[in-house]
Amino acid sequence: MHRLIDRVFRTAFGADPAEPPHDGAILHLDRGRFAFTTDSFVVTPLEFPGGDIGALAAIGTLNDLAMCGAQPLHLSAGFVLEEGLDMALLRRIVASMAAAASAAGVRFVTGDTKVVERGKGDGIYINTAGIGLVPDGVAISPSRVTAGDAVLLSGDIGRHGIAILAVREGLGFEGTIESDLACLVPTVRALIDAGVDLHCLRDPTRGGLASALVEIATAAQVAVEINDAAVAVSEPVRGACALLGLDPWHVANEGRLVAFVPNRMAAQALAVLRAQPGGTQAAIIGRVTTGDTRGLVFARSLGGTRVIDMLSGEQLPRIC
Amino acid sequence: MHRLIDRVFRTAFGADPAEPPHDGAILHLDRGRFAFTTDSFVVTPLEFPGGDIGALAAIGTLNDLAMCGAQPLHLSAGFVLEEGLDMALLRRIVASMAAAASAAGVRFVTGDTKVVERGKGDGIYINTAGIGLVPDGVAISPSRVTAGDAVLLSGDIGRHGIAILAVREGLGFEGTIESDLACLVPTVRALIDAGVDLHCLRDPTRGGLASALVEIATAAQVAVEINDAAVAVSEPVRGACALLGLDPWHVANEGRLVAFVPNRMAAQALAVLRAQPGGTQAAIIGRVTTGDTRGLVFARSLGGTRVIDMLSGEQLPRIC
Repeated sequence: MHRLIDRVFRTAFGADPAEPPHDGAILHLDRGRFAFTTDSFVVTPLEFPGGDIGALAAIGTLNDLAMCGAQPLHLSAGFVLEEGLDMALLRRIVASMAAAASAAGVRFVTGDTKVVERGKGDGIYINTAGIGLVPDGVAISPSRVTAGDAVLLSGDIGRHGIAILAVREGLGFEGTIESDLACLVPTVRALIDAGVDLHCLRDPTRGGLASALVEIATAAQVAVEINDAAVAVSEPVRGACALLGLDPWHVANEGRLVAFVPNRMAAQALAVLRAQPGGTQAAIIGRVTTGDTRGLVFARSLGGTRVIDMLSGEQLPRIC
Repeated sequence: MHRLIDRVFRTAFGADPAEPPHDGAILHLDRGRFAFTTDSFVVTPLEFPGGDIGALAAIGTLNDLAMCGAQPLHLSAGFVLEEGLDMALLRRIVASMAAAASAAGVRFVTGDTKVVERGKGDGIYINTAGIGLVPDGVAISPSRVTAGDAVLLSGDIGRHGIAILAVREGLGFEGTIESDLACLVPTVRALIDAGVDLHCLRDPTRGGLASALVEIATAAQVAVEINDAAVAVSEPVRGACALLGLDPWHVANEGRLVAFVPNRMAAQALAVLRAQPGGTQAAIIGRVTTGDTRGLVFARSLGGTRVIDMLSGEQLPRIC
């Protein structure tokens, strides 16, 4: 265990060799509001087109901080390893984690590892927690969402979930669909730097776009009207969803965000989203209303209007 | 999942029902030095004499913060649940977590839950992370340990590990030995409030007292000489260790600490430790020296002197 921590984790996470291992990290933080978040990752397979569990574990928590409007400061990592885990695989995963953190300008500053017997895990489970600083003037919460707000989506949906399923089920389109896994920290920072008043942000992960919108509509007690045609879904994802009987609105994403902003700032926010790497398909997808339909989400298309539900019952398991 | 989070976790952890669920917790922290730590818990069985995985998960991270000298502020929790987990058991465990946090004056402010298929977990794995504030003037680090320091131990050793093993192996002394599981936050606070200059603290968990001392001796490049007779081991633990072929020095504790303090403050620190609940067996167990034996730990007794090694090879698995 000592060797594992020293040679794999401390090395990969850039621990100062002169700094003795300790039970926690001492952080020097300036005065301010902080975001604190945690996420566990059990995705299978551990490596998939467009990423691995390590990149996902880093980016998942970075994105949760970003959804709070926070600039990430520090990350922690907790590993549950199954006996017999291939060490080369572990090294690749830990390197992915470290690279993803580094790209966001932060480090894993504290961690822990446990080993469980063969058959009591599934290779590797990772928990990450993160602390971030919320800049002055930023107040992101469902409670700020109000009638008239524009709803923006930063790109096409459904790629993460379908990429995972394709590998897992050995489907033919495997490899043609890559996860959208991407760190949203620079995107949120760009929105804030541009002076966009972000009422609410959400990354549509488990449960997909539908669940993200319904959660916010419920919490804010507003109705959300989406223009179905404005929600980008790539042809391969649309095809795979048809084949699998899935609604792309329910499929997990790991590099997309939904933003609620005042309507007068919608065009400016869209310009910022489109200027981000991979942001060409960003769109204003709808608006917030109130009235009798509070708490509901509607998708309007030429064919009519459907009420969007959260995915109930069985969600796609082990997608993150 | 939504119902599980709402009805079990948010309720147990005292989430404000008016506060909508969000991806992270926004914390208002004053200026200062912060400790940030994380730990994963995979103990089996999930309930054991003297505690359960929930109490352990809260107290384990609280104790890690305490070992940094930090006053805990906020906790996070990440759960990996195995399909088919008994919900009554989960409720008991979550209630234990919440109670342990509450007793230390803090709350779980953010969390996450994942479910894995039957046979890919073992009931429940918990990760906790914590943030704490390090008071001005407190500087706890192996690098401060120096020749002449006194070494104190806050109570008898070996009870946690033996309590777990006894249940697991169906041994006859099951029930007669309870885990020493206890939150060390009040103890550390009392030492700091008494003005004791804490050079280093360590809770001898996995690997026991031996590993804690060897780690510090190695990191600080000092020798540690322990008076074997001063290290309290209860008769039942001594008997169980003899039966199982274990050295009590290598058995895990979850409510004990080792403190390195200047010799002139040793008597005062001892008085503080003894005044704590369950602290009657606290003792000054040794001292720090330097010279040719840097990095080594010695246990001296009437029978002679032995060099203490970290437990190498197979540690007791799934003890925390």
